[in-house]
Order: sequence, then structure tokens, then C-alpha cells
Amino acid sequence: MDIIFNRRSVRKYTEQKIEPEKIDRMLRAAMQAPSAGNQQPWEFIVIDDKETLVKLADFSRYAKMLPGAALGIVVLERQTLKYPPLVEQDLGACVQNLMLQATEDGLGTVWLGISRGDEREAFVAEMFNLPESVRPYGVVSIGYPEDENANHFVDRYDETRVHYNKY
Amino acid sequence: MDIIFNRRSVRKYTEQKIEPEKIDRMLRAAMQAPSAGNQQPWEFIVIDDKETLVKLADFSRYAKMLPGAALGIVVLERQTLKYPPLVEQDLGACVQNLMLQATEDGLGTVWLGISRGDEREAFVAEMFNLPESVRPYGVVSIGYPEDENANHFVDRYDETRVHYNKY
Repeated sequence: MDIIFNRRSVRKYTEQKIEPEKIDRMLRAAMQAPSAGNQQPWEFIVIDDKETLVKLADFSRYAKMLPGAALGIVVLERQTLKYPPLVEQDLGACVQNLMLQATEDGLGTVWLGISRGDEREAFVAEMFNLPESVRPYGVVSIGYPEDENANHFVDRYDETRVHYNKY
Repeated sequence: MDIIFNRRSVRKYTEQKIEPEKIDRMLRAAMQAPSAGNQQPWEFIVIDDKETLVKLADFSRYAKMLPGAALGIVVLERQTLKYPPLVEQDLGACVQNLMLQATEDGLGTVWLGISRGDEREAFVAEMFNLPESVRPYGVVSIGYPEDENANHFVDRYDETRVHYNKY
């Protein structure tokens, strides 16, 4: 599981396209995530069209890497579910699986979050003319890293965050 | 990354204790998760005391496996952060990392979710006498699986969840 330890946010990519089987594996990994009552609250818009990536880049000031990415994946949250309060947790696991599989396959990723009810959500919903049954949860930017050491270990362990048997 | 594909919810465990280095690796994996603005909104209570696990099992009707687990880890959400609306997403990735590392190390896990403001949150907060600066986000039950094939591949891929360039 070096992948867990080496994954970093990667914002600069080469021009190389991503092989269809790698896209497939990322989506399969994403859909293997656990979810409350196995509600599987996810849908995905896979974007490789340059013009669409350029437009999407305007959804957030942190999304300027999107026009240079081979792929953007918009993760959507289904709105009609058994356990709505746990959907954000389920989808966090889903996005993490997707990014770990991408890392395993030599790709670089950034996760661009969208808060419930914020202007980024409205931008993406309007751009894709989304029905009320789904809302944009986040966008993942994906490409082959310009720097081949872009994914590398930086220790985030902090022992003060760990308590034993009591707080 | 077979781990992503083989991880399942595992509720029956042997009596075997979990080695300290495996506990350490799980916590390290959890803390490698990405978070909005790298806010790292996590703390952990690691529980191996049987009496505490028995008490904690009453927090949810889905938590009956806890007294038979070698370990429970309560994941806590810090309340004073830069990007509060994205905390649930960050912690979803954190819990997923923790469970994937556990799977890699031959362990079985279940994620028991806690919704913001529900009675489970109140139960756990009271049991551990938590300050206002943290709230319980979820509990992970962990042990060596009774069935050594407990983690195995079940395909969750659904092509109808995938859209290309538009919805």
C-alpha cells in the first residue's frame, strides 16, 4: 500500500492521453467503496473533451489545472437515498478509491471539493444541466504527471492525534 | 490494488490481538488522506480495552460486533477548521485509507457511521466525555477475520452510473 503513502496532489500533467482500461479501473475502484446500507450514492461524468474541461475550470479558483488535464471526473451524489446524512462519508471513500487506483496506474490527481449549497455546486449543476436527482459532490483532475516523482512520500503522522481507550 | 476490490465488511473475528505495528500502520495510513487545504481534521481513540468495547457497542444497533473485535477506533472530527463544509469528505477518505491498510495487513473491518447531530453522536460524545472541539464521526471495528476468505471480490461495477462529457 505504498500508494496510500505516496499519493500527492498533482497539478501539472503531460499531454499523454489516459488509456481506456485505466479509466475503467478508476471507475471500478470508485464503485467498490463501502457505503451506508450499500446505498452506492455515486454517478460519474467522465470528461476528456478539451472544450468542456476549459469551461469546467471556471467552477473554482482552485481548478486552473483542468484545461491541462487529460481527464476530469465529476463525481455526482444521488439525492434519493436510504441514509442521506451519511452520503458525504460514502463519497469521500469513493473518491479516495478512485485516486488511489489512479496513483497505482502512474497517474496524478487532485480532488476539488464542492460544498453542499455553494456557488461551485450551482456552476457545475448548471453547466451540465443536472436534474434534481443528482448534485455535484466534487471534481477529480487526472493526468500523467509532468514530474515523474510527483507522487512521493511526505510524512503526515502526528502522534498527538491519537488517544488510547479514553480521550 | 486488489485490496480496494477485495475489502468487505467483516463482522466476525478470532480472539487474536492486533500487533502494535499494524495499529501504527493503520493510523499512519489514515493520516495520509488528502484534506481541504490540508486541514487534517482527524483525531483517533484506539480502544483495545474489552470493557470499553462492550460499552461502546451500545452506541448503535449495528455495532453488536464490537465486543468481539480486537480493536475499535473512534474517528473524531475537529471542529475548528478552515473549511468546515468539506470535513465530512476529508474524513471519508481518512477512514477508507485506514480500512484499506487494515485489509492489506490481513485484518477485517466494518465502518459504523455517525450522522451529525444524531443520538449516536451524543452517546459516544458522552461516553468519552468529549470536549466541544471534537465530535465523533464514526467507529471502525477491527479484528482478524474468523473466515479467512472474508475479504473477497464482489463486483459492484454498474455502467449506468457513468456518463461521458455530458449528463
